[in-house]
Amino acid sequence: MTPIAPPDPSVLAAARSLSDAQAKPTGALGRLEELAAWVAACQGVCPPRPLADVRVVVFAGDHEVAASGVSAYPAEVTLAMVHGILAGGAGVNALARAVGASVAVYDLGVRSLEGVPAEVRRFHVGPARAIHEQDALTPEQLDAAMDAGDTIAAEAIAEGAQLLIAGDLGIGNTTPSAALLAASLDLRGADVAGRGTGIDDKKLAGKVAVIDQALDRIGDRARDPRQRLAALGSADIAAAVGFISGAVRRGVPVVVDGLIASVEALLADELYPGSRAWMVAGHRSTEPGCELAQTHLCLTPILDLQMRLGEGSGAVLSVGVLKAAVAALREVTLLADL
Amino acid sequence: MTPIAPPDPSVLAAARSLSDAQAKPTGALGRLEELAAWVAACQGVCPPRPLADVRVVVFAGDHEVAASGVSAYPAEVTLAMVHGILAGGAGVNALARAVGASVAVYDLGVRSLEGVPAEVRRFHVGPARAIHEQDALTPEQLDAAMDAGDTIAAEAIAEGAQLLIAGDLGIGNTTPSAALLAASLDLRGADVAGRGTGIDDKKLAGKVAVIDQALDRIGDRARDPRQRLAALGSADIAAAVGFISGAVRRGVPVVVDGLIASVEALLADELYPGSRAWMVAGHRSTEPGCELAQTHLCLTPILDLQMRLGEGSGAVLSVGVLKAAVAALREVTLLADL
Repeated sequence: MTPIAPPDPSVLAAARSLSDAQAKPTGALGRLEELAAWVAACQGVCPPRPLADVRVVVFAGDHEVAASGVSAYPAEVTLAMVHGILAGGAGVNALARAVGASVAVYDLGVRSLEGVPAEVRRFHVGPARAIHEQDALTPEQLDAAMDAGDTIAAEAIAEGAQLLIAGDLGIGNTTPSAALLAASLDLRGADVAGRGTGIDDKKLAGKVAVIDQALDRIGDRARDPRQRLAALGSADIAAAVGFISGAVRRGVPVVVDGLIASVEALLADELYPGSRAWMVAGHRSTEPGCELAQTHLCLTPILDLQMRLGEGSGAVLSVGVLKAAVAALREVTLLADL
Repeated sequence: MTPIAPPDPSVLAAARSLSDAQAKPTGALGRLEELAAWVAACQGVCPPRPLADVRVVVFAGDHEVAASGVSAYPAEVTLAMVHGILAGGAGVNALARAVGASVAVYDLGVRSLEGVPAEVRRFHVGPARAIHEQDALTPEQLDAAMDAGDTIAAEAIAEGAQLLIAGDLGIGNTTPSAALLAASLDLRGADVAGRGTGIDDKKLAGKVAVIDQALDRIGDRARDPRQRLAALGSADIAAAVGFISGAVRRGVPVVVDGLIASVEALLADELYPGSRAWMVAGHRSTEPGCELAQTHLCLTPILDLQMRLGEGSGAVLSVGVLKAAVAALREVTLLADL
């Protein structure tokens, strides 16, 4: 529970002063002014450097809970979508190209790895066991997954990454995310379960039951974030928590995506209190748990466009707004120079 | 009152089918799917062409009503900001560069034209007279301004513009816009007046009084959109109405900015009913009239980031989202090809 110092307050103040001195009414760029000042404070320099190296890392894994009918899709889709991302044809690829971000995908727990390059399987831990029946991960698996995420963040930062996004990929993954959220906020399945990829009322009822059963199974162990993550999470989710924490601990800001990433961000903030100051919410998804998690983190989403794709897609889309905010703080002339 | 046919419904349907066949849950890209289908329908082709030529045209003019203390800034700022835009240092320039759009500015009624290139003054009509005392424009000035906007749209489209944005520039311009809105929706000054560039309570009360006086002065002439525009508008606002109509009548879609552009869009839709189907609201500004106008047009803003800069800046920022939406519809692989 190591506390994290916030982004540089003196640079934040300098960025606000710069914005106020620009040729526009004070505050007229609204949220853009806040966002640009936040980027400056994270970078420790005003004006901030352009956001030239933004990376999405998609953490892929299967969830045995999917066999209990909590998803509209079969588990085979996880592997197919790993190939889709590698081929550049997934939603996150198209959006990342549009805003100028790069996409990487790592398998943490996909069941079948047919045709997947070794680099992508480098951090394979294994699928998450069915959380309503047993712990998703052993303590060793949890450590391996969190370390993998930390290593991935460290490598990206060493290569120059200025802003990082954790994306998610895995049929069934809104079930463990919702369960983790319920355990974090002392809620029940009905409070947090959404329709994910588009399930019907019957499957939704089953999803609620699975979450409640998982919560009942672990009892008081839910209070500890690491035990909660091992019991209710997955290798892909644990790796993303390690990745977010790895970015924040190294002073690199994070854009939080929808439900899954918001739950991961909540865990990262619990493990390293104060982490949330290094985060911005890129998007609010239609999953009910997303708003709950973001509200608990005091993060207001930049975009609200009824997306629910996962893959980090909503956060990636918001990168265009963040880049524009930085451009405005860098490029708008001073009133004194008009 | 010539009706405008909507964007091609068969292309709209084809775009929705294409989106549904892509490798993602149906509807998972939310509003992006709607926006991309709308662009396709406007272009009449599916998948839509990339939005490579997006232009914002800023219409600048002074408003003699500014002498009545309705703004936080002196009228000289209008000319200074024309130069700011020409130098590329205004907010709209920075945001346009960030999203890949171009910016042009035309003077329609700036009081002093010192140092402004002839090209920018090409359509000069004159400042708007104080609307609480007399009509802003003569009928001849109204025609000249609307024709200017139409010509500017026609020229941009002939050069290849695929998406157009009307930006506004002029100290005092939220007063005529709010008055036009009140006249359009049968409201009073207190319903529509906002703080514009940031006026205090006393100036706001004066702004409300000016608007009410103007509404009382013109009486039933408010019912006719052209008479309303001549009485309460300005050359820059009338030109933007002509510009928006010119785009829509030529089958080129428009992104609507904040209060001023939304009021212009409302007038364009009244003059050419059905025009609104060719429009999307890029942004909701903090001016109370903006939401009123957009709601009346049934336009839901893409962004809501508490901006109130004008210059078309909010609409320009949303172009990044529109481009990404088009990219997703063009580039995401089909589920069948996964």
